[in-house]
Amino acid sequence: MKIVLAPDSFKGSLSAERVCAAVESGLHRVLPDAEIVKRPMADGGEGTLDAVLTAQSASGSARRKQALVKNAAGQSAEAAYALIKHGIYEAAVIEVAQIVGIEDAHNMAVPVGERSTYGVGELVRLLLAEGIRHFFVGLGGTSTNDGGAGLLAALGVKFTGTFRRDTAPSPNGLAKLISVDVTGLDARLADCEITLLSDVNNPLTGERGATAIFGPQKGVAQHDIGKLDAVIDAYADRLEAALQRRAKDRPGAGAAGGLGYALQLLGATFESGAQTVARMVGLADACKGADWLITGEGRSDTQTLLGKTPFAAAQIARQHGNAALKATLISGGVDATALAVLNETFNGGCFSIVPGPMALDQAVIRAPELLANAAEQIARVAMLRAD
Amino acid sequence: MKIVLAPDSFKGSLSAERVCAAVESGLHRVLPDAEIVKRPMADGGEGTLDAVLTAQSASGSARRKQALVKNAAGQSAEAAYALIKHGIYEAAVIEVAQIVGIEDAHNMAVPVGERSTYGVGELVRLLLAEGIRHFFVGLGGTSTNDGGAGLLAALGVKFTGTFRRDTAPSPNGLAKLISVDVTGLDARLADCEITLLSDVNNPLTGERGATAIFGPQKGVAQHDIGKLDAVIDAYADRLEAALQRRAKDRPGAGAAGGLGYALQLLGATFESGAQTVARMVGLADACKGADWLITGEGRSDTQTLLGKTPFAAAQIARQHGNAALKATLISGGVDATALAVLNETFNGGCFSIVPGPMALDQAVIRAPELLANAAEQIARVAMLRAD
Repeated sequence: MKIVLAPDSFKGSLSAERVCAAVESGLHRVLPDAEIVKRPMADGGEGTLDAVLTAQSASGSARRKQALVKNAAGQSAEAAYALIKHGIYEAAVIEVAQIVGIEDAHNMAVPVGERSTYGVGELVRLLLAEGIRHFFVGLGGTSTNDGGAGLLAALGVKFTGTFRRDTAPSPNGLAKLISVDVTGLDARLADCEITLLSDVNNPLTGERGATAIFGPQKGVAQHDIGKLDAVIDAYADRLEAALQRRAKDRPGAGAAGGLGYALQLLGATFESGAQTVARMVGLADACKGADWLITGEGRSDTQTLLGKTPFAAAQIARQHGNAALKATLISGGVDATALAVLNETFNGGCFSIVPGPMALDQAVIRAPELLANAAEQIARVAMLRAD
Repeated sequence: MKIVLAPDSFKGSLSAERVCAAVESGLHRVLPDAEIVKRPMADGGEGTLDAVLTAQSASGSARRKQALVKNAAGQSAEAAYALIKHGIYEAAVIEVAQIVGIEDAHNMAVPVGERSTYGVGELVRLLLAEGIRHFFVGLGGTSTNDGGAGLLAALGVKFTGTFRRDTAPSPNGLAKLISVDVTGLDARLADCEITLLSDVNNPLTGERGATAIFGPQKGVAQHDIGKLDAVIDAYADRLEAALQRRAKDRPGAGAAGGLGYALQLLGATFESGAQTVARMVGLADACKGADWLITGEGRSDTQTLLGKTPFAAAQIARQHGNAALKATLISGGVDATALAVLNETFNGGCFSIVPGPMALDQAVIRAPELLANAAEQIARVAMLRAD
């Protein structure tokens, strides 16, 4: 029996790699001879870099690198990225959360009005200098809401405010914006292929825009949303006039506080984060001859079916695995009202790791043990007809 | 595929019959053609009468009856029991909780010192008058701690206190006990076969006795335990001297507040509650040709293996089902630390009904829905190799 483990991380609890390890240890108790292939997954957000490095490091086709660039708070900090083989080219995998992440206490100590994605642009510039022209950029988990102005500033766009002074590429700086000069934009960008990984399809501004939807979790006060959204909207209008391009209303422009907008202005295209990570980690190959896919995430609900990692993993496994392949979901929690639709994708059942009534914090703390136990018990019943 | 459902009730949440219905509805969503045989179970306590009636009513071999007898508080109340075929005889199935149960608000409104098992003796006497000589008595879930004195009083034993007055067969009455007269004990009892159903093996008195272990949940104050235990001990000494029999230290004497003692003095023998209920509901027959047993209970831990319903059901199913039969446990909660030992019995896995972190009261309220969902998901993964 061949079993493929391709979970996302359990956010705030376990990395995808640790999820794989726990599930494997539980399965081994029941199926010591099963062939278990582990492909920790991600959806372009947190964990994307780890997933790519875990899958490709063994074959030597991925290298973990570090660069000293500014974090969202403007301090220099080491940021990790990866260089991978991409056809005949070398491509960079950037997880923006590694640079301007919301989990970074330094970033969060500075108000959102002052935070900037400048460091992301710095990293791109460094990579351009090294000859890199292919970029995979994992969006998501950022602490910023600058419309990607920081990135553009680092790549040569000049933002000028009142009294003809430079103004910072942050929400507060953009509030004083008078003019945008794009003539200095790094010409090498024209030769680049930039692929954005995200499942966010919000526009840059408006009711469903970055500020309204994702601003509050980054610290934007409810009463500041309208004002800040207008600042980003005016910034985008100036930028689009200067570049003679439009991207404000494109799906995903609102990803990563507007980085999805700025990068699309530079010609970047979106791909499903989970699908692309699956390709980078070689999930289709791993699923060849597989009888059973086990995937999971912190919490599963109807959103899971909108291209999230478990959904993508199940699709790929069904395409490339054995005809009778079953896909089983093991998550921290499963929304009971979503089961009817989840069942269509996860024909091998949807399970929670919790062994009884339990508070969330307990489930998080005990996740590795509970996950191994759940995998073990599921393996026991899965073998119902195998005796 | 033949599936047998033989769960206990989920105490405080669902009767065993409703557990069966929920599991069946979940299984049907995945396995519409499976042969599902339902045998709601019990362990001699709460639910025993229902289990017997559910299993035997269809065949017409069990009849539900009612009698007007005293509850623990001394008020007349209708109490249900059953008459079943037992070989060539008719036997009565009495669930003492139906008469002096701890769930009965009337009983609990009177202090434990005044409560008595008199009504249980009344019912036995009524049945003796009807010619019944075979009794199955489900112990457990009683509100009483009278050492079975009430039962004996109703059957003719006289308890005399100070000033040669009759004294009540309750803890407070027994505190004034001077002498016991057993000459009036119903002679027909000598012809009776009384089988006690319980998995309690505590003695009547002492550190592991009825008062010390089960008294507090019935309302015995911690500082009254020693005094009350001594009262019961002195009562038992007088009784044993009069009857020239001993039963105080027999396993199960401490069941049902000492009813287990009084009934053993009358010649009753203990059987595993779950094993006996299994026999009465025809579980072995139901398991013939079965591939899968699903059992469960409110909460499972290492105690489950000490003869509780799921354990007994798994044993019987393994003896009488197909060679490859799998036994799966679905409970409200499963103690994670007990899994290692539970796995030996439940080779088809141990599962909780909860789909994620959740408070106990929510799990109780939503139990039917959650149970059906869990059964469905388990059925999905169980069919892993059946495609």
